[in-house]
Amino acid sequence: MKNDLLLKALRGEVTSRPPVWMMRQAGRYLPEYMVLREKYGFFERCQTPELACEITLQPVDIIGVDAAILFSDILVVPQAMGLEVQLVESKGPFLPEPIKTGNDLERIRVPDVHETLQYVFDAITLIKKELNRRVPLIGFAGAPWTILCYMVQGKGSKTFDEAKAFCYTQPVLAHRLLQMITDTTIAYLKAQVKAGADTVQVFDSWGGLLGPEDFENISLKYIRQIVHALKEEVPVIIFAKGAWYALKEMAATGASGLGIDWCIKPGLARSMAGNNITLQGNFDPAKLLSPIPELKKEVNKMLNAFGNGRYIANLGHGILPNVPVDHARAFVDTVKEWEGT
Amino acid sequence: MKNDLLLKALRGEVTSRPPVWMMRQAGRYLPEYMVLREKYGFFERCQTPELACEITLQPVDIIGVDAAILFSDILVVPQAMGLEVQLVESKGPFLPEPIKTGNDLERIRVPDVHETLQYVFDAITLIKKELNRRVPLIGFAGAPWTILCYMVQGKGSKTFDEAKAFCYTQPVLAHRLLQMITDTTIAYLKAQVKAGADTVQVFDSWGGLLGPEDFENISLKYIRQIVHALKEEVPVIIFAKGAWYALKEMAATGASGLGIDWCIKPGLARSMAGNNITLQGNFDPAKLLSPIPELKKEVNKMLNAFGNGRYIANLGHGILPNVPVDHARAFVDTVKEWEGT
Repeated sequence: MKNDLLLKALRGEVTSRPPVWMMRQAGRYLPEYMVLREKYGFFERCQTPELACEITLQPVDIIGVDAAILFSDILVVPQAMGLEVQLVESKGPFLPEPIKTGNDLERIRVPDVHETLQYVFDAITLIKKELNRRVPLIGFAGAPWTILCYMVQGKGSKTFDEAKAFCYTQPVLAHRLLQMITDTTIAYLKAQVKAGADTVQVFDSWGGLLGPEDFENISLKYIRQIVHALKEEVPVIIFAKGAWYALKEMAATGASGLGIDWCIKPGLARSMAGNNITLQGNFDPAKLLSPIPELKKEVNKMLNAFGNGRYIANLGHGILPNVPVDHARAFVDTVKEWEGT
Repeated sequence: MKNDLLLKALRGEVTSRPPVWMMRQAGRYLPEYMVLREKYGFFERCQTPELACEITLQPVDIIGVDAAILFSDILVVPQAMGLEVQLVESKGPFLPEPIKTGNDLERIRVPDVHETLQYVFDAITLIKKELNRRVPLIGFAGAPWTILCYMVQGKGSKTFDEAKAFCYTQPVLAHRLLQMITDTTIAYLKAQVKAGADTVQVFDSWGGLLGPEDFENISLKYIRQIVHALKEEVPVIIFAKGAWYALKEMAATGASGLGIDWCIKPGLARSMAGNNITLQGNFDPAKLLSPIPELKKEVNKMLNAFGNGRYIANLGHGILPNVPVDHARAFVDTVKEWEGT
């Protein structure tokens, strides 16, 4: 690997500087992505390895990030399990027949991932070839709780109260569903690794909607299974947005990396997570809209606070579609130019 | 006052049990409210003292809460400042001409609250008469940052990135606007108190979208002014959803009460906030959808964790519209029946 900063940082090895990538870096802020978005539907882009490959490589070529992350969506998993998933552009996901009862569970299954998601593994094989060992490739999946949110609520929500009510009123069903998602996700991520993913990230976008006790019972319990199943093969990164209260417990899973959002100071995150894990984050995505000199100042402040060592520079959530490309590049360049503390 | 549990708890006096009320308790889960909602538009309900009074009293009469909270909306403040605010039912607020530039600031002013918001003070006078000293009345306003969010973004948002970008790119303007909102809010809350509000709560619904440093500079700085201006007259409660990281700083403002959401354990909240402030919360609103026996168990767990003393039982955010009335009542009754630790 020509640039293996990310993998070194995840393994806790000394690096010349922190690696940098951005969540949702292959996305709508890139004009080159928008061209493909206008020509092809969402699932067409995911399911056509050549398109997924082209999109995955865009931020590596255009912005110069230290890692590629597979272009795909966490909702390919419920789709593979047998639920219809529609992704209407700018409207978010819609699942016309969500899970509400025990009967609904009969409609889904733990699929053979090679039968249902082979297009992802083909994309990974192609991406690895095109990357030609320039930077590592990150695979990913949603955390089971976040996937359940969509499978039950059927669409995006501020509170995902129907998904929570499902867990509170039908806990046996909910845990059966969570286990099915977990089993699918483990097989899915293992196949991503086999196809060439150098590390995998588990996205728990809605983890922070749960209180500390529910997060343990409904989310972390299943994330832990995923980490245990994968960690001997590749480094695993957990990112549970808003779940700052469980940093210690997440660090104890054996994950190599822990994503954090911008609502926790680096020092506190480090003291909660301990020294045996790599922290990743935590620039406020909205700050990429600041004037560039201000942006650079803020990035340097973040770098100084984390220091170089078990640290990956990233945003605290996905990059916003309205970020100018030169601001995204300024973020990455500032990390590359950082001279240390 | 026949039932002054809330005021005693806010003053740190010994109470027989914790007082209980629910954020958004005069709301859509009540069939009696829905009847009025179908007959009258949102601002008609706010601006007609008889209607605002009837709605404010509904949860006192129907659910038996220990405090009434004025039926109104935080967006009456930008409205009084000169911005058009539309509240389309189930669609959320819409401000057709949001603030984007310095010129836009010329369109608004710090109003005479008696000229623009007298209907609120009239409602309070009427409510106090109808309450007839049964329970205290809580007045309220939005925190300046949360109000700015709507004034700049023009509508609800998951990220309020345009409001944040406004602060990052035009800080001088942003602080001028925040100060105008603060001045209006202080006059507004003082007049609420003069009309009879026994305590006031400042709602910073979007405080938690800011990182710790921004929260101090953009939000808490102005909340602090409000607390200082009001605290000699009535106890002030601050509720900044998601801003757990600033509990210590918020407690240091001189506020009497501190609302917390369900993403922080009671013990940690207490240790961050210290012992000289009353904590209020923090039941996950979605848990009111649990079966009643489970709900009661969870409420008792919360009560045992907070203990009786400088504590007000409440939800960690507003009650959801789909909560059955008997579940809301079970929440309140469980607090009333609690036998202590």
